[in-house]
Amino acid sequence: MKASVALTLAATTLVLSAPASAQFAKTEDAIKYRQGALFVMGQHFGRIGAMVNGRMPFDAKEAQDSADVVAYMAKLPWVAFGPGTNKGAPTKARPGVWTEQAKFREHAEKLGPETVKLAAAAKTGDLDTLKAAFGATADSCKSCHDSFLAK
Amino acid sequence: MKASVALTLAATTLVLSAPASAQFAKTEDAIKYRQGALFVMGQHFGRIGAMVNGRMPFDAKEAQDSADVVAYMAKLPWVAFGPGTNKGAPTKARPGVWTEQAKFREHAEKLGPETVKLAAAAKTGDLDTLKAAFGATADSCKSCHDSFLAK
Repeated sequence: MKASVALTLAATTLVLSAPASAQFAKTEDAIKYRQGALFVMGQHFGRIGAMVNGRMPFDAKEAQDSADVVAYMAKLPWVAFGPGTNKGAPTKARPGVWTEQAKFREHAEKLGPETVKLAAAAKTGDLDTLKAAFGATADSCKSCHDSFLAK
Repeated sequence: MKASVALTLAATTLVLSAPASAQFAKTEDAIKYRQGALFVMGQHFGRIGAMVNGRMPFDAKEAQDSADVVAYMAKLPWVAFGPGTNKGAPTKARPGVWTEQAKFREHAEKLGPETVKLAAAAKTGDLDTLKAAFGATADSCKSCHDSFLAK
């Protein structure tokens, strides 16, 4: 477990620090990429939310699979918020993503470890443990959305 | 390497055999999910393609990262082609996805192992090895697209 957490964190750091230049042929591609990755992440996160909030029966295996996907997907979107990708396709990203880059990056970098803890919590198979980790991850999503996602 | 290939294949099988029922709240979500996952996969696959075709300088690290993402993403979209998800949002999936399910599933199941080989090839750092694996994976994409993706 510890090794896998360390690996995931290392991967997060690598992806976040990868040069954003020349990664996307068009700004539209960058926007669709980050939206696609965030949508896939959101679907799995929402599934865990439905379980911890009692809207869906708790299925430990499904929670674990979904948490693993969340932890993986959480690494991907950030390089797609590079310079100039504030337009070119419909986007709800606020200008602050580009004018307050350090703050945005700080939020993005906080999400990774939360999702790693979420995946670890899901592996315990204990709903209360999962609930606590889900809440912490949801707070991380929300604090970034409050600042950087248009209503 | 062998263990990681086996693990990835096991994960592919698990995801493909997961019950599609109740996974998505709306058919629109299923359509956006599979499109998002395939778009993310396509961006990374396209990056490898640009390298093996000489349109982009070969960067072994970037190729490896991208191949890993391709192998991971290749597991996700298939459960989102469940019954009734042929409409509800714009989709280029042809009716055959649902009327020839066994054939579609066979294509989907072939992609997984190809992408695992692609990731292994990328890890060698050898461009010719990568080129061969890229070609085989591209053939797998193409044969499915020829049958099941609207022009």
